[in-house]
Amino acid sequence: MDLKENERIDDLQFNNLKIIQNKKGFCFGIDAVLLSDFAKRMKNCDFVVDLCTGTGVLPILLSGKTSAKKIVGVEIQPEFAEMATRSVKLNCLEDKIEIINRDLNNLNDAVKSGTVDVVTVNPPYIKKGSGIINEKDTLTIARHEISCTLEDVVRVAARILKSDGEFYMIHKPERLVDIFCVMRKYKIEPKVIKFVHPDKNKLPNLVLVLGKRCGGSFLKFEEPLYVYEGGTYTDEIYKIYNMNED
Amino acid sequence: MDLKENERIDDLQFNNLKIIQNKKGFCFGIDAVLLSDFAKRMKNCDFVVDLCTGTGVLPILLSGKTSAKKIVGVEIQPEFAEMATRSVKLNCLEDKIEIINRDLNNLNDAVKSGTVDVVTVNPPYIKKGSGIINEKDTLTIARHEISCTLEDVVRVAARILKSDGEFYMIHKPERLVDIFCVMRKYKIEPKVIKFVHPDKNKLPNLVLVLGKRCGGSFLKFEEPLYVYEGGTYTDEIYKIYNMNED
Repeated sequence: MDLKENERIDDLQFNNLKIIQNKKGFCFGIDAVLLSDFAKRMKNCDFVVDLCTGTGVLPILLSGKTSAKKIVGVEIQPEFAEMATRSVKLNCLEDKIEIINRDLNNLNDAVKSGTVDVVTVNPPYIKKGSGIINEKDTLTIARHEISCTLEDVVRVAARILKSDGEFYMIHKPERLVDIFCVMRKYKIEPKVIKFVHPDKNKLPNLVLVLGKRCGGSFLKFEEPLYVYEGGTYTDEIYKIYNMNED
Repeated sequence: MDLKENERIDDLQFNNLKIIQNKKGFCFGIDAVLLSDFAKRMKNCDFVVDLCTGTGVLPILLSGKTSAKKIVGVEIQPEFAEMATRSVKLNCLEDKIEIINRDLNNLNDAVKSGTVDVVTVNPPYIKKGSGIINEKDTLTIARHEISCTLEDVVRVAARILKSDGEFYMIHKPERLVDIFCVMRKYKIEPKVIKFVHPDKNKLPNLVLVLGKRCGGSFLKFEEPLYVYEGGTYTDEIYKIYNMNED
């Protein structure tokens, strides 16, 4: 596999899966790994769509962690979509994963309405208008709500999901009111919530949400996840990253 | 002070404040104490209204913990309102606290629109239609959304609050989506959230929310409060209850 300038191949520490990343560009973080772990409970998952797929890390991880038959990753930025497509080939997953280079707001029939079992998404976290420097920079687009907002993501998910389909998202706790209100607006009811704390004694800095299309209202809290405790990773993190503690 | 059958006087462990309660009726719980502690940060509080005031425990505690000048407690059940009025007298707080026996949905000019600095509320937690046995029982009315729903409480609060007024509520975490969506609907933006866990290793069973009328969207998490740890009260609880640890 030929790599372009500044690219490297990283090991995903799971089922020998690998991913191509640009050392100077946006590399996937703990968010994607935690989301894949949270979403691996999915059962009815013949057809999964990952919005804002970026490097394609989530489709590749989910191909190993779930029984998903078909996974489509949607990515607006051509550089990312092209790199993700090469990562799919690198793992010989062309039969299972397809990367679509498309603005999710113009998906149209690329993904038909009411056909998807599960939507996953690790969207840009930062609200529009919060001091953006360069709107064309690929990193900025990945992190700020320039090309798509939280509402875009949820609206599109609601359109493509089946009536009992599931929606898995990771986001920032300070956006929780926005998240709940937008999800309910588009009839994806938040059913499960799990906070991620950087340390046992710190406040949450990430939140995982599972919503159900047309679900009834009752929110279940799951045990919070702590990344560090006393200067080292917690057992949960070792387990999620498939690392040996010794 | 004459007591009726089954009534007793309880010490509120704060500023020598006392309250009359019915041993066989609804007695205030930890919820009211935690809400008063959470709400004691209020600063602009010339006029405070406590909705669903019950035995009047919150107005009485707030009279000691804040600089509130006037506190009105609104209670629909005549037995509670009458008992609360006697508790106010018992503490010689008639100048500061007034109990109104009124359905909050028919408050009208008893509290004028846009005049209140702070609303506090410890509303019935249980959603309408969740297996109610006796709709006339005073305990049932205090716990179930029979006489007023979450939406009633928030709508009334929004009407009576000044445009920068504050709203303090304690509720159940499983209702958090309802809480956020209803608050935003009536333009009381959730600004601060604090979870209460019965034990250090248990999930939250209560949630404290501070909302600001016409506030901007950004949710701040506060350190969670743990009631027990290793079989004894935590230091925070000792502090809130003004108990000596020795």
